[in-house]
Amino acid sequence: MAKVRMGMIGGGQGAFIGAVHRIAAAIDQQIELVCGAFSSDPQRSKDSGADFYLPADRCYGTFAEMMDKEAALPADQRMQFVAIVTPNHVHFPAAKAALEAGFHVLCDKPATLDLAESKELKTIIEKSGKLFGLTHTYTGYPMVKQARHMVANGDLGEIRKVVVEYPQGWLADAIDSEGQKQAAWRTDPKKSGAAGCMGDIGTHAENLAEEITGLHVDELAADLTAFVPGRRLDDDGNVLLRFVGGAKGVLTASQIAVGEENNLAIKVWGSEGGLEWHQNEPNTLLIKSKTAPMQVYRTGNDYNCDAAKAATRTPAAHPEGYLEAFANLYLNFANHIRAVEAGETPSEFATDYPKIDDGIRGMAFIEAVVESSANNAAWTKFDL
Amino acid sequence: MAKVRMGMIGGGQGAFIGAVHRIAAAIDQQIELVCGAFSSDPQRSKDSGADFYLPADRCYGTFAEMMDKEAALPADQRMQFVAIVTPNHVHFPAAKAALEAGFHVLCDKPATLDLAESKELKTIIEKSGKLFGLTHTYTGYPMVKQARHMVANGDLGEIRKVVVEYPQGWLADAIDSEGQKQAAWRTDPKKSGAAGCMGDIGTHAENLAEEITGLHVDELAADLTAFVPGRRLDDDGNVLLRFVGGAKGVLTASQIAVGEENNLAIKVWGSEGGLEWHQNEPNTLLIKSKTAPMQVYRTGNDYNCDAAKAATRTPAAHPEGYLEAFANLYLNFANHIRAVEAGETPSEFATDYPKIDDGIRGMAFIEAVVESSANNAAWTKFDL
Amino acid sequence: MAKVRMGMIGGGQGAFIGAVHRIAAAIDQQIELVCGAFSSDPQRSKDSGADFYLPADRCYGTFAEMMDKEAALPADQRMQFVAIVTPNHVHFPAAKAALEAGFHVLCDKPATLDLAESKELKTIIEKSGKLFGLTHTYTGYPMVKQARHMVANGDLGEIRKVVVEYPQGWLADAIDSEGQKQAAWRTDPKKSGAAGCMGDIGTHAENLAEEITGLHVDELAADLTAFVPGRRLDDDGNVLLRFVGGAKGVLTASQIAVGEENNLAIKVWGSEGGLEWHQNEPNTLLIKSKTAPMQVYRTGNDYNCDAAKAATRTPAAHPEGYLEAFANLYLNFANHIRAVEAGETPSEFATDYPKIDDGIRGMAFIEAVVESSANNAAWTKFDL
Amino acid sequence: MAKVRMGMIGGGQGAFIGAVHRIAAAIDQQIELVCGAFSSDPQRSKDSGADFYLPADRCYGTFAEMMDKEAALPADQRMQFVAIVTPNHVHFPAAKAALEAGFHVLCDKPATLDLAESKELKTIIEKSGKLFGLTHTYTGYPMVKQARHMVANGDLGEIRKVVVEYPQGWLADAIDSEGQKQAAWRTDPKKSGAAGCMGDIGTHAENLAEEITGLHVDELAADLTAFVPGRRLDDDGNVLLRFVGGAKGVLTASQIAVGEENNLAIKVWGSEGGLEWHQNEPNTLLIKSKTAPMQVYRTGNDYNCDAAKAATRTPAAHPEGYLEAFANLYLNFANHIRAVEAGETPSEFATDYPKIDDGIRGMAFIEAVVESSANNAAWTKFDL
Repeated sequence: MAKVRMGMIGGGQGAFIGAVHRIAAAIDQQIELVCGAFSSDPQRSKDSGADFYLPADRCYGTFAEMMDKEAALPADQRMQFVAIVTPNHVHFPAAKAALEAGFHVLCDKPATLDLAESKELKTIIEKSGKLFGLTHTYTGYPMVKQARHMVANGDLGEIRKVVVEYPQGWLADAIDSEGQKQAAWRTDPKKSGAAGCMGDIGTHAENLAEEITGLHVDELAADLTAFVPGRRLDDDGNVLLRFVGGAKGVLTASQIAVGEENNLAIKVWGSEGGLEWHQNEPNTLLIKSKTAPMQVYRTGNDYNCDAAKAATRTPAAHPEGYLEAFANLYLNFANHIRAVEAGETPSEFATDYPKIDDGIRGMAFIEAVVESSANNAAWTKFDL
Repeated sequence: MAKVRMGMIGGGQGAFIGAVHRIAAAIDQQIELVCGAFSSDPQRSKDSGADFYLPADRCYGTFAEMMDKEAALPADQRMQFVAIVTPNHVHFPAAKAALEAGFHVLCDKPATLDLAESKELKTIIEKSGKLFGLTHTYTGYPMVKQARHMVANGDLGEIRKVVVEYPQGWLADAIDSEGQKQAAWRTDPKKSGAAGCMGDIGTHAENLAEEITGLHVDELAADLTAFVPGRRLDDDGNVLLRFVGGAKGVLTASQIAVGEENNLAIKVWGSEGGLEWHQNEPNTLLIKSKTAPMQVYRTGNDYNCDAAKAATRTPAAHPEGYLEAFANLYLNFANHIRAVEAGETPSEFATDYPKIDDGIRGMAFIEAVVESSANNAAWTKFDL
Repeated sequence: MAKVRMGMIGGGQGAFIGAVHRIAAAIDQQIELVCGAFSSDPQRSKDSGADFYLPADRCYGTFAEMMDKEAALPADQRMQFVAIVTPNHVHFPAAKAALEAGFHVLCDKPATLDLAESKELKTIIEKSGKLFGLTHTYTGYPMVKQARHMVANGDLGEIRKVVVEYPQGWLADAIDSEGQKQAAWRTDPKKSGAAGCMGDIGTHAENLAEEITGLHVDELAADLTAFVPGRRLDDDGNVLLRFVGGAKGVLTASQIAVGEENNLAIKVWGSEGGLEWHQNEPNTLLIKSKTAPMQVYRTGNDYNCDAAKAATRTPAAHPEGYLEAFANLYLNFANHIRAVEAGETPSEFATDYPKIDDGIRGMAFIEAVVESSANNAAWTKFDL
Repeated sequence: MAKVRMGMIGGGQGAFIGAVHRIAAAIDQQIELVCGAFSSDPQRSKDSGADFYLPADRCYGTFAEMMDKEAALPADQRMQFVAIVTPNHVHFPAAKAALEAGFHVLCDKPATLDLAESKELKTIIEKSGKLFGLTHTYTGYPMVKQARHMVANGDLGEIRKVVVEYPQGWLADAIDSEGQKQAAWRTDPKKSGAAGCMGDIGTHAENLAEEITGLHVDELAADLTAFVPGRRLDDDGNVLLRFVGGAKGVLTASQIAVGEENNLAIKVWGSEGGLEWHQNEPNTLLIKSKTAPMQVYRTGNDYNCDAAKAATRTPAAHPEGYLEAFANLYLNFANHIRAVEAGETPSEFATDYPKIDDGIRGMAFIEAVVESSANNAAWTKFDL
C-alpha cells in the first residue's frame, strides 16, 4: 500500500490556509503532496512548489494544465485527489475541472461563490462518481464528535435550544483597504460572495450547530452590519434561528469583536441535558444534567465514543488542536479514497467528513442571512 | 447617628427573595429591620416576624395597616423605608401606598406588573418626593461597576456589539403545575405580568447591558417560546437588539437551559476594546484589546475605579458574591436616605442604585419583547 | 427567642479582620453586637463603638474592664460570647479572661502566641465549661464541607497524597518596615509568634488539609525563608508532609508570591479518586475518578451533602463567598451557644466549627516548621 | 534543497512514543523517515516499516545493522539523523553506535539509564562532532519559550520561588504487573533506571523549571514513595528545591494521582512579577504583577517573543498542542543539521532544543532524588 497522492490548487507563497492544509495532510503520514497549481503565475507556482520539495514539472500555472498533465501520468503516479485552497470564487471552476478530469476533490469552505454554483456542483459530483469533501475543520475535533454522539444517543433528550457564537477581532479596523491580503479578498464580493463575516465564519457556526444537533435550520432572521466604514460586506451579524421540529436558537458571528481570537463556541440544551464546547480549549466538552454535577469530558479518555477516539492520536492531556482536527478530515477522506479505489466498503469513520450537502446548506445559509438582513430581518427559509 | 429603619412587605416564611433582602440589608450593619407585612395572613405575618426577632405589634397583616400604624409612630421609631419583596402584581399598590404614606421604597424587580403601572409609579414617586430604588442586583457587583467605568471612560472606544445571556435550567420541567411556589407565580400572568422568563431574568439582562454600556435599546426583534407544554408564559427567548447610536446586540434568556444555574454573562465590544463578565464568577472582569494580552481585572485591587472599590469589603480573593452585590444596593440606598433626611448632598456612590427610570425601561422591554414575538419577531420600539 | 449577644475584643477603627468578623456575625441576623473593647485607648474604643451604633457605656478600654462590667449586667443583657480579633499575642490573655469570667469565646487564628499557651488554654476551656471556637474561615465554605464529606464517605478510597498551596503576594516588598500596620505586626515575633507566613496562612493550609482528609500530620520537613531583606520572620515556606497512616504531601505558602491574591488551594488523591478546590472560586469542587469524566460540584445544588447545604443561603450560582464562609462559623457557634444555654442537645451542624484541638495542632505545626527549618529541614514531629 | 532524512530506533507496532515522534517529524514536512530498526525482531521491524511505507531493505533488525547498512549508502540517500524512541536502557548503546557511525542523534528522555552513561555520552558526542538533541517536549511549547523570554528579560525581577507539579493517574493501580507494556518497562529498574515516576516525568518537571527560570538546582530533599504494593520503583515523589543563587522551590510528581491526565504545571515568582503555565491548556501563559491586572498571554499573537512566534504555525486560537510542541524540537533540530552540514551558521532558533547538558542534569536529578529519599530526605547536591 502506498500513500494517497494529493495535488493542491492555490496555497502558494504568502497564502494562509494552504499551509494549514499541507500540515493537515502530512500529520498522519498517509498522504503525499505530489503536485500543485499553487499560483496563476507559473513561475510563482514553481517557486512555491520548490518550497514543498516538488519537482518543477509537477508545479503548474493553471488548474486546467494541472488536470491535463496529471491525467496523462501513469495511474500509480498521478494525483488521486486535489485540495482546493483558493479564495471562494475559484472553488467551483476548480472543483468542476478536477471532478470532470476524474479526480476526487477536497475543498475549502464555503463550497462555492453562491448557492446556484453549489447546487450545480452537486450534479457534477454525482455525475463524476468521485468523492467531494468540504473542510469544515471544526467538526474534525474529537469533542465535537463526542457531542454529536451524545445528542444522537438521546443523552440530552429532545433538543430545545442552541446558542452558537463565533467572535473574531481581526477586522475591527479597515485593514482590508490597507493591503492586508487575507482581509482584502474576504471583503470583496467578487471573491468572497454575498457575505463577508457570515460566509467566512458564520457558515462554520451554522455547520457546527447542525452537525452536533443533527437538526436543520428551517428559517432565520438576520441582522448583518458592516461596522467598519467603507467595507462592502458584513463584518458582523446576529441571527435568530428556528430549526425543523421546533428548536430555537441564536447564531452570532463577528470579525470586529476586538480582542477575540477565534472563539467559536456552542451551547445546546435539550429536555434532559445540555452541552457546551469552546474551540479555544477544544479538548474539553461540558455535559450538564438536571440533577448531577456537570461532567467534564476530555479528549483521549476511554469513556469517549469510538468516533472521538478514532480522531485522537495521543493520551489524555497531550493536547491536540486545530491542525489535528483538520488532519482528521484529511485522514478520513484519504481512507475513503482508498476504499472506493479498492472497491471496498469504507469503514464507518472513513466517510465521516463534510460533503456537498453540507456545502449547499452553507451556501443556502449565506443567501438566507443576506436576504433576511436586506428585508430588515424578515424570517427567511433556506432555498434548497 | 442610628441605623436606618426598614420595613418589609412580603418575604414571610417560605419565600425566597425576602430572605435575600434581609441578608443584604444586614451585611453592612447600617440598616435595622423594624417591622413588616410579611404575609396577607396576619398570624403568618406575626409568626414570620418572630423568626426575625420582631415584636408582634410591628408585624402587620396588610401593607395598608403597616402604613397607618408606622406613620403613627414617633419619627425616631417608625420605619424610614420599605422593601417590597412580593410577587410582581403587588409591587405597584404596595409602593404607591408606601410613597403616599411618606416612606421611601426599595422594590424588587421588575418594577410593576405592566408598563402603564410603572409610568404611573414614576408620577407618584415625583409627587411624593421620596426615594425609589429597584433591586437589579447584578449592577451591584464591583466588577460591573468597573465595566461601566471603563466604557464611560472610553477604554473600549465606540460600542459596537453586545451579547448578553441569562440561562437557567430550573423550569425545564413542569414544576409550576406541580406546586412549586416560586415557579407557580412566575408563570402566572396575573402575578408575573406579560412575560415569564423575559420578565423574571430577561429584564436583568437588559438592565445589565444598558447599565454597562450606557446605551439605550432602540428597537428589538424577539422570538419567545414556552417549551414546557401547558406553560402560559415564555420560558425562553432570543432577541435581536439595536441600540440608539448604531450598536447591535443579542439577548438570550432561558429557564429551560438544563444544567445551567444562574449564568448571567455579558460581552461588549467597541472600536478599541472588549469586555466580558460572568455572574457565576463575579469577581473577574476580562478586558480585551487589539494588541496587548487580555487583562484579568479582579475585585479588591487598587487598580479598580472608586465605585468598584467602594462596593468591596475585603481584599482581593476574599471572594464577595451575590449577597454582597445585593448589599451594595441596600447600603447606597440607606446612605441616600440619610443624606436626604439630613438635608445633605449625597455622596456620589449613595445615588448609585437602579431607580424608576430603569424600572420603566425594564417594563418597556417586557412589553416590547412580548409584542414583537406576537408579531413574528417584528422590530418593535420601547413605548416610553 | 432572642439574638445571641456578642462582645468584641480588638477590631476598632483601622483594623482589618474585626470588620470581617462583624459582617460575618451580622449576615444571618442571629447575633447582635452589644459591646466591645475595641482598642486599648478608651476613647478610641468608644469612637469605634459609636461607628457600630453601640452606647458608650458598652465600649470598654480594656478587656478586663469589659469582663467586669459585662458580668455585672443582668443575664439577659450581658454579652454571651466574645470575639477576639486582636493580633496573636493578645489571644491568650483575652480568651483566658473571658472564659474565667464565664463567657464563651470565638477567637481568630492562630489560637495563641505559642504552643504552650494553647495547651494551657485548653485546660482553661475545660475548666470553664464554656465553648471555644477558632475562626479557620476556609473550613466554613460549603464545598470544603462537601470535600470532607466525600473523603469520609470513602469516595476517594484510601488517601495517598495531599498538595496544599497558599500563595499571597502582598509582602513581596518591605512594607512592614514602612508603616503598613497589618504587615508590621505580622512580621513582629512579639505579636505574631515564632512564624510569619507560616503562622498567618500556613496554619490555614495545614488546617484545611487535615479537615478535608481527616488525617493528622505525623512529621514534616520545612524550608522557611525570609526573602525580603531585614524581615524578621519567614515570608515563604515549603514543607514536606507525612501523615499518620502513610499518606504523603506538600504544603507551600508564601507572602512574596507577586500577583497572587489569596489563592489557597488543595488537591487530594486517594486510591479511588481525587478532589481539587480553590478558594478564589470557592463554589466549585472538582471530583476526579479513574474512569469517568471529572465532575464539577457546585454550591447550592441538591446533590451536596447536608452540611454543605446547611452552609448555603441561596440557590446555585448566586455565588456566596468568604464572608458567608465566615458567617457559617458564627452561625454554628451561635447555635451551639443557644443549645448549651438551653440545656439542649446541639444539632449536628451547630458543633461544626474549629475548636481548641485544631488550635493546638496549628500551634504545633508552627513550632514544628520553625524547628525543622532551623535544623535544615530535618523531619520533625508535632509536639502534642 | 531536500528534506532531512531520518532513521528511527524503536517505535514499532504497539509502541507509544515512536508514533508521536513520527508525527512530530512529519508536521512541518521538512523531514522524511527513510529507515528504521523498529524492533529487535527483524520481521517485526519490516512489518512496522511497511506501515510507514518504507521499503523492506531499509528496515533493520538491529541498530548495529542499521548503522552499517546506512553508512554504506550514498551520501544523498542515507539517513542524516536517527531518532531513538526505545525504553531508557537502550538509549546509550543506540546513541553511541549512531554517533560513532557518523549520524546525528535525537533521543527521547531521560538521556540514559544512569548518570555515568550520560556523562560518557557527552564525551562521545563531543568526539563525534555530531549533534545530539533530547526530546524534553514541553520546552517546545511557544508559551514556555515566552515564559523563558520574560524571565531572561527581567520582567519578573530576581526569581525567588518555583512550584512545579506533574500529576498523572495512570499508575494508580498495579497495571504494571498485569501486562500493560508501557507500565511494565517504566517500573522495571533494568529498563527505566533508578527512578520510576521521577525518571519518567519528574525529569520533565525539573527540566521545565530550569529552562524557564535559567536557574540550576543546587540541592534537593526528596521523599519518594511507591504507593502501589509490589511496585519496585517510586510512583510518587515530593521534593524541596534550593537553586543556585537563593531561590527556593517545590517539585511534586505523581503517577498515582487518580483522575489526573498529564497536568504538568509551573508557577514562578520573582521580586517583580510572577508567571503560571499549565500544559493541559498550553496556549495560555499567565503573567502577574504587583499593581496591574493579570495578563493572559496567548499563543499566536504579535506581542509574543520571536522564539514563541517562530514556534507557532497558525493564528491565535487555532490551538496548537503537544504534537506541535514536539514538532518544534524536530524542526529546529533539522534546521540545525542543515546548517552544520552546509557549513553555515545556524539561525538562533535552529539551536533551540534540549541537548546533552540538559540530559546530564536530568540524570543527576534522578540520582539525587533517589539518594536523598534513601537518606530520609537529606539535602543532596547534583553530582555533575
